[in-house]
Amino acid sequence: MKTRAAVAFEAKQPLEIVEVDLEGPKAGEVLVEVMATGICHTDAYTLDGLDSEGLFPSILGHEGAGIVREVGPGVTSVKEGDHVIPLYTPECRQCKSCLSQKTNLCTAIRGTQGKGLMPDGTSRFSYKGQMLHHYMGCSTFSNFTVMPEIAVAKIRDDAPFETSCYIGCGVTTGVGAVVNTAKVEPGANVVVFGLGGIGLNVIQGAKMVGANRIIGVDLNPDREEWGRKFGMTHFLNTKGMSRDQIIAKVLELTDGGADYTFDATGNVEVMRTALECAHRGWGESIIIGVAEAGKEIATRPFQLVTGRVWKGTAFGGARGRTDVPKIVDWYMDGKIAIDPMITHTFKLEDINKAFDLMHAGESIRSVVVY
Amino acid sequence: MKTRAAVAFEAKQPLEIVEVDLEGPKAGEVLVEVMATGICHTDAYTLDGLDSEGLFPSILGHEGAGIVREVGPGVTSVKEGDHVIPLYTPECRQCKSCLSQKTNLCTAIRGTQGKGLMPDGTSRFSYKGQMLHHYMGCSTFSNFTVMPEIAVAKIRDDAPFETSCYIGCGVTTGVGAVVNTAKVEPGANVVVFGLGGIGLNVIQGAKMVGANRIIGVDLNPDREEWGRKFGMTHFLNTKGMSRDQIIAKVLELTDGGADYTFDATGNVEVMRTALECAHRGWGESIIIGVAEAGKEIATRPFQLVTGRVWKGTAFGGARGRTDVPKIVDWYMDGKIAIDPMITHTFKLEDINKAFDLMHAGESIRSVVVY
Repeated sequence: MKTRAAVAFEAKQPLEIVEVDLEGPKAGEVLVEVMATGICHTDAYTLDGLDSEGLFPSILGHEGAGIVREVGPGVTSVKEGDHVIPLYTPECRQCKSCLSQKTNLCTAIRGTQGKGLMPDGTSRFSYKGQMLHHYMGCSTFSNFTVMPEIAVAKIRDDAPFETSCYIGCGVTTGVGAVVNTAKVEPGANVVVFGLGGIGLNVIQGAKMVGANRIIGVDLNPDREEWGRKFGMTHFLNTKGMSRDQIIAKVLELTDGGADYTFDATGNVEVMRTALECAHRGWGESIIIGVAEAGKEIATRPFQLVTGRVWKGTAFGGARGRTDVPKIVDWYMDGKIAIDPMITHTFKLEDINKAFDLMHAGESIRSVVVY
Repeated sequence: MKTRAAVAFEAKQPLEIVEVDLEGPKAGEVLVEVMATGICHTDAYTLDGLDSEGLFPSILGHEGAGIVREVGPGVTSVKEGDHVIPLYTPECRQCKSCLSQKTNLCTAIRGTQGKGLMPDGTSRFSYKGQMLHHYMGCSTFSNFTVMPEIAVAKIRDDAPFETSCYIGCGVTTGVGAVVNTAKVEPGANVVVFGLGGIGLNVIQGAKMVGANRIIGVDLNPDREEWGRKFGMTHFLNTKGMSRDQIIAKVLELTDGGADYTFDATGNVEVMRTALECAHRGWGESIIIGVAEAGKEIATRPFQLVTGRVWKGTAFGGARGRTDVPKIVDWYMDGKIAIDPMITHTFKLEDINKAFDLMHAGESIRSVVVY
């Protein structure tokens, strides 16, 4: 079949809206009509050529919501007409990782997904006879896409596509980091570094689980209002502050250090500050942000020996097929908010504008509605 | 009163055995006759002047066992004649840390202990009218010492002093890192870097809780026999191996990575290797060793984002008054062994020989019996 898609023909070039060829689903695969897709920093990271494993030409996009239009042979967990969120972290429930019940990092299709291919080692996309790579197993910048059955989460039919697509990455990453990775308990003090599309979701996750102080940290004063909208209790503008000054301030605000700190910046210096703001004895620091290639985190081991814990999270520790539908419920039940974070909506034709806004720091989240 | 002690008059000089003056216990304090004391790397670290916070003149030693000979006013938890192990990490059961039930790092007397003083800000030791500093709140290189009540663990009377003193630091640090900090579960795969007095205790802790593979790593081939004696199942001599080679070998031995890795070397490069040998998704790496002043650990944040956890432990996460008596029971019940690790026994007069043996790597543990 033919489908419209925004294609990344090469790094550092705008996406081009063209009609591409899409093969139908093979065994264990489903055809999804993408109804809406968010534009995430990770898409920009790849498009800007910063990801050393980035592949071109490809169809980017990994934060979508849509409807199953066709299922391949052997598919049993979803059917035509089901509303789904594509999962860049699948959940096969069969591999060592899934069976461990200790991680969400399913390894069933990791090898081929990293190569921009479907599990059988081929691509379903092509343009004028040239193969196009899949991206993060999703490629939601195409109106139609093909996904493995294990990489779609069935969600309720009444969830709006143009907001619930955000659960495909940003919401789940931020809220999940609180709920699944840190397991923040009621009354805990929390510090969130970086109040963008992920950090705000950390804030509302912390609020949902009953955290006490929720301190937001950013260099951009405009983000204070954003943070407060989602439950932030204190704002710290760290412009011009040294690491020691930031730590001293956080220790003052938290009676000795935070129970949980989160880095949602991707900056390795901030990651260190976040760790060192954690409370001696038990404070945990969770890295969410993706750092530039080659960058390293560092600290004195004394920080860990005296009881701080350094962790990370991918896709908020969420097992996609199991947890994403629950987060959709939380949204529909009003436990978390998404609508105010969707600051801009575009047609596919204007998707490059969404990248421009993101680079300018003017959007929280832009969504393309097909 | 007078007591014999090995005094560290200045850094980098041998200890001198002299008769010092000791004031009796004040309110909340007890006088302990030290019956035996181990000599630990931390004593050497301070004596060698590597600890930037080391104080001189002082009476070192922090791994002892003895008998309460006198109690000061208000002491209720121990009485004259009780057998005790001095605790460099006290347990007041009243401070924010103790009450958190999330850490063993009691802060009740942290300020004065770090200054080499008793909680009232003075020292009980002096020599020819000159004040001598306490060390780690213990000073077990003195035949008699004064301790705060909250810093002694009452133990059973039938435990031999010359072996159970080792529970005052090395045994508890290694076994506790497994039991309290990592909480290793039966069937887990464990890697221990550094098979000295701490690493061997990590090994026997891992064996006690039912770990599956217990892989010991050291540069010294003589340590293989030592490791196997306490439950090590595989030995890896990493001499000449690169980090990548070590990681590849561990991943091969553990089907993809260890569930728990422990650094008992104090080398920050080894700490990194230990982290990166942990299993993607859930592997935890625990830093036990004390690094040289100023040294930092580093890794790519990707290691954490993909599910590895970096932790540390002090005194094996043990709450001294509560947990040390249990470890003494484990020893007396034969669940863990100590006797074979005590490779050398000295009189106080020969204590400097114990330091020489340790520096030469020829002892596992030397003990002074008074």
